[in-house]
Amino acid sequence: MSVPAAAPLATPVLTLLTDYGLDDGFAGVCHGVIAGICPAARVIDVSHRIPRQDVLAGAVVLAAAIAYLPRGVHIAVVDPGVGSERRALAVQTADGRMFVGPDNGLLWPAMQACGGATKAVEVSESPLRLASVSATFHGRDIFAPVAAHLAAGVELRAAGRPLDPGALVTLELPRARLENGVLLARVMHVDTFGNVALGATERDLECLGAALGQRLELAPEPHVGGAGQANAAVFTARCVRSFADARGDELVVYLDCNGAVAIAINGASAAGRLVIASGDLVRISSL
Amino acid sequence: MSVPAAAPLATPVLTLLTDYGLDDGFAGVCHGVIAGICPAARVIDVSHRIPRQDVLAGAVVLAAAIAYLPRGVHIAVVDPGVGSERRALAVQTADGRMFVGPDNGLLWPAMQACGGATKAVEVSESPLRLASVSATFHGRDIFAPVAAHLAAGVELRAAGRPLDPGALVTLELPRARLENGVLLARVMHVDTFGNVALGATERDLECLGAALGQRLELAPEPHVGGAGQANAAVFTARCVRSFADARGDELVVYLDCNGAVAIAINGASAAGRLVIASGDLVRISSL
Amino acid sequence: MSVPAAAPLATPVLTLLTDYGLDDGFAGVCHGVIAGICPAARVIDVSHRIPRQDVLAGAVVLAAAIAYLPRGVHIAVVDPGVGSERRALAVQTADGRMFVGPDNGLLWPAMQACGGATKAVEVSESPLRLASVSATFHGRDIFAPVAAHLAAGVELRAAGRPLDPGALVTLELPRARLENGVLLARVMHVDTFGNVALGATERDLECLGAALGQRLELAPEPHVGGAGQANAAVFTARCVRSFADARGDELVVYLDCNGAVAIAINGASAAGRLVIASGDLVRISSL
Repeated sequence: MSVPAAAPLATPVLTLLTDYGLDDGFAGVCHGVIAGICPAARVIDVSHRIPRQDVLAGAVVLAAAIAYLPRGVHIAVVDPGVGSERRALAVQTADGRMFVGPDNGLLWPAMQACGGATKAVEVSESPLRLASVSATFHGRDIFAPVAAHLAAGVELRAAGRPLDPGALVTLELPRARLENGVLLARVMHVDTFGNVALGATERDLECLGAALGQRLELAPEPHVGGAGQANAAVFTARCVRSFADARGDELVVYLDCNGAVAIAINGASAAGRLVIASGDLVRISSL
Repeated sequence: MSVPAAAPLATPVLTLLTDYGLDDGFAGVCHGVIAGICPAARVIDVSHRIPRQDVLAGAVVLAAAIAYLPRGVHIAVVDPGVGSERRALAVQTADGRMFVGPDNGLLWPAMQACGGATKAVEVSESPLRLASVSATFHGRDIFAPVAAHLAAGVELRAAGRPLDPGALVTLELPRARLENGVLLARVMHVDTFGNVALGATERDLECLGAALGQRLELAPEPHVGGAGQANAAVFTARCVRSFADARGDELVVYLDCNGAVAIAINGASAAGRLVIASGDLVRISSL
Repeated sequence: MSVPAAAPLATPVLTLLTDYGLDDGFAGVCHGVIAGICPAARVIDVSHRIPRQDVLAGAVVLAAAIAYLPRGVHIAVVDPGVGSERRALAVQTADGRMFVGPDNGLLWPAMQACGGATKAVEVSESPLRLASVSATFHGRDIFAPVAAHLAAGVELRAAGRPLDPGALVTLELPRARLENGVLLARVMHVDTFGNVALGATERDLECLGAALGQRLELAPEPHVGGAGQANAAVFTARCVRSFADARGDELVVYLDCNGAVAIAINGASAAGRLVIASGDLVRISSL
């Protein structure tokens, strides 16, 4: 006697993260390729609006999202090196997930969060790719079809040439350090709202002795050649539990939804106020 | 004997409306949480690009959409008060739909369109939320998981603490009034195309004696402190059946696809021409 | 004994391409209507961000995508004539696909790529449309419901009034011509990245004698009345296999992922550099 309830549990999950944008049908075409190969798959768009060719931003968003995505095949394509000699990967991690994308570090922090790579293959010439491969749209021609076949149950080793999983391109997210009582943290990500996530954790704030209510001094480092040249300004912020605790348009420092130390203004852009962008350094000290 | 045709009818439907934008993976992560809890659900994105923290805009879009969405569990998150004491809701309406989101009026007009709330629970500390709840991302940590469990068949009363469904925060959409032969209507929504939807209906136009072809005078009220200070301009518009009836770049007034009186220019932004935004007042009189 | 593997193959596919944007819930509402009529359908968003009322851009994106979309019912709505007398179509093509949208050329290039129309019906007054049809939102009220019923198995002839499939509005994509050793090509599409796709093919480049590494002169034609009036500038570009082969910020010419001759700068906007937009003419000659 058939037990139909088993079917939904077996639904394969694919997720997509790219810098393709939503204007030109690039993401839609990847959905089309996947649906043609693995019609049963549920496909989740993590984001298609990673800033163009910003591998770090893509890596940060994917690493923050991965714990909330069902175990599946995770495609990520932010790929400034497409058409060059960079490797194309399909990887299995210790927790049984699979990742598919360019070997440029984009997948690395998320894979680390999943226990690290245990098996890897190079898929540039995968027998699972489309019959005709363009020079510039590997998302459609290689990554989507390879991932869809994996989701449909094809073995990883059938997807390409074996690679040493220890020899992948790494990308370590920036981590804050304490120096003479000053916390030096880099901007890891600026979100849609202008909230600034730093490469720093609750523990870093504790080292600074910053409890709730504590006032902090924020000194963004003017980046060389940037618009911030004259920006030697120093800002005051208050440690709060969430940006909802901010009064008026004050700057607040809090732990964001991914556990990163973040700077925000309730209802406005902290990145705009501080004139800082991804990669910039911020010096934080207690007042 | 099994009747597989019954299965599709039983597919649970969840819908999502937020101001999260599409850049940072926030919406994608909500999809991931839902797929993990209720893999059989069909998830429909109504919009993730409601203007940031604009509860009225979100309420208008949801209320306009609801009649066209299958009966299901409807999540909406535009939530300036996240992290404060505002309540978090799961509500059942008279027509059997369920709504999940903050208790700030966002859900109210849509729920009224569905016969009003008949049961409500407070879900801030729901046993169905994720094990770890952040201070700032309740869409991921509370609303998505609670809604997914409801879609999967969990009873509403198991989702949280009972609330009086008559004690929810209300949000009445603006309604026009006639004063000395002049219709005073507020801008309820400006869409992507710059079309301006007013808080006025066909009946209001009839009270004004405005038939098809009638010429109307539109006098936007300069809003205090706004860029429209010097904007005492008055515009002429023509009553038409649809904006396709507009000639050249004339302003037209018509009933939009949701039955609201709207102002448009075919191929251009009426909001830009009139220099008006959501909440502004427009005086309309017959010529 | 049941063979559940057959089920996924039977999943109907619908695809959507519109200029509705993602802000106002218009696309979400179409999804809602489809899910209500054909809950088993998989719906793929090709793009909802076609430039407003730009029928050519929509036609180019759909034609480029169609080969990668599973056979299904393909809805496209870029519809400056909504509310006028333009016809509304449901069409079957030689390869068994179905297309639904306005009869303004939008569907034409994609349908040609599918062997051309073999059957067509006019659906403005289709018995399958919603009970109440607005003057301005035919995507929701006519195209989505008609397409969903077709996806659910309704016969095309039941969807409307028979039309001569040879009498549909055509839209021929621009094609380059060679004149005195100069290739005259029109800009067919500018993508999110500022890459410029021309109405020219590999064969056109060959006629120009342009092999890999060849240097080309690009002379954009200033369009009358445009910002490009003073733009008599001439640019030098190099023929490469992909934009990844570009050095520094040089202009390169290559075959894009759809086989069109394209102009790009790696990491920047070629359309911005050349000050050209869709429809503009570019003269290309060998150096």
